[in-house]
Formats: sequence, C-alpha cells, structure tokens
Amino acid sequence: MTKSTSFLKKYFLSHREVTKELTEKIASEDYAYKPTDTSMTAEELVTHMLTSFHQFACIAAGEEPEKLHEDTEQATLQELAERYTDASVKKIESISDERLEETIDLSETFGMKVPAWRLIEIGIDHEINHKGNLFVYVRSLGFNELPMFVKA
Amino acid sequence: MTKSTSFLKKYFLSHREVTKELTEKIASEDYAYKPTDTSMTAEELVTHMLTSFHQFACIAAGEEPEKLHEDTEQATLQELAERYTDASVKKIESISDERLEETIDLSETFGMKVPAWRLIEIGIDHEINHKGNLFVYVRSLGFNELPMFVKA
Repeated sequence: MTKSTSFLKKYFLSHREVTKELTEKIASEDYAYKPTDTSMTAEELVTHMLTSFHQFACIAAGEEPEKLHEDTEQATLQELAERYTDASVKKIESISDERLEETIDLSETFGMKVPAWRLIEIGIDHEINHKGNLFVYVRSLGFNELPMFVKA
Repeated sequence: MTKSTSFLKKYFLSHREVTKELTEKIASEDYAYKPTDTSMTAEELVTHMLTSFHQFACIAAGEEPEKLHEDTEQATLQELAERYTDASVKKIESISDERLEETIDLSETFGMKVPAWRLIEIGIDHEINHKGNLFVYVRSLGFNELPMFVKA
C-alpha cells in the first residue's frame, strides 16, 4: 500500500499550483488582512503553508526540517512560494523507495505512527486544509473568479 | 498501489468527525451567514460537503448518486451530518476489493481517469478543502477554540 515519489510529487503539485494561483492575488497591502482578530494574517497563513509542507517533506526524507528564508528578508509571498515549492519537489524526489516505507513516529503531534509516504500525504492534507482557509481570505479581498480546489 | 476500505473509512472519518464538530457550533440563526456576497451560506456549505462526499462514495461503488434528504425537510445540519455520515461509511464498506481497483472516467469533471479507491480519496480532499472554508466561517461566528484539522 505504498505510493511512488512520482505519484506524490504530482499529487502535491495538483494542490500547490492552486495555492500559488491564490497567492498571486494577494498584494503587499493585503498581507496584514485577517478575517477575525484571532485569525492568522494572509501573510502568516501562506508562510505557514509553505514552511509546514517543506517540514513534512524533510521529516519524510529522514532529515532535519530546514527553513529557507529569514523573517527579516522582505521577500514577497510569490517569491517564497516559488522557492519553497521548488525545494519541496526536490525533497520528495530525493526519497528512496525503501525510505518511503519506513515508519515515522508522530505520536506526539498527530497521535500515530505512519510510513514516510503517508506523512507526505498528511502534509498535502495540511496544505488542502489551509488552502480552504485561503480561498475565503482571497474571496474576502474581492476576488470571486477563483480556481477549482485541485488542478488536473 | 491500492488502499483497503478499512483504511479509507478511517481516513474519511478522521476528517468527517472534525466537520461534525464544527457543524455542532452552527446554530440555526447562523445558517444564513456567509463571509462575502458571493460565498455559500454556512448551511449551503455544510450541505454541499455532506452530499458531495456521498456522491463520490456512490460513484466509487458503481452506483447512481443518491440524495438522502429533501430540501423542504427542515432537518438540522447536525441531523443531516449524522444521516449522511452513517450512509457514506456503509457505502465505503460495501465496496469490494475488485471494485476498488476499477477505473472510473472523470475526464469531464476532474480531467482524469482514476481507480475507485482514488475517487474516495479525492472525495476526502474535497471535504478537507471545504472544511478549511468552514473553519473560517466558524471562527467568524465567534468561536476561537477550534479542533485540529484532523482527528487521530
């Protein structure tokens, strides 16, 4: 019941491409937008999606999670999306078939132990969840011509 | 590269239980709430999630999609969530191992052909996406103690 890195890469990008399309609509003056007082800002939400998926991919690959930007860097969200997406794709491609089957202990965070391929899928589910948040943000910023939630 | 119905049922419920928990917070006076003019109302969103997943499950099982409620029925969202969840679980359990492997042509809607097990997963992704919308709705309705996006 495993899945290949080529399947996982394609599956990841079928959602990440939509994340990038939504991110394109967020202008710098809207980075601080948040729908409620307790929500993440648009900038925090997109950054959380990009950094979290890359962490999932690093852990699945058996490596220390890496951060690819400095908070002081002033990169645009679009630049960060490019940078993290490229790195995450390379990370998925680097995982061997043997490693995909190895069990990873997530008892503390998700209350389960899963094979590495499943951790990538959980990372994609995390992306889909927050992309669902992002759709509402982008609609609230005045866009109502929005893409489908997944790209073929 | 298949997945068993027991895996798919557990995976579905790990998200549907969260959907139900969020739905519990929507009082009847909030059914008409929508974050923007072009958004679905809270009632439309939850109903769309429940009916869509059940459609995915019926198609995966090789059956005609069925609707389990009448629009005139005045059932609460919580009642509908119970009804559809029970029926969707039974539908997943009814799918044979052979059927799970059968190819389903989704060229017109999703631009792809997939095995039945993958269609269930796409249905779960659809649920996760709209549950991501629902989190923003529920937070906007004044709730900020919210569950994690997936249940262990």
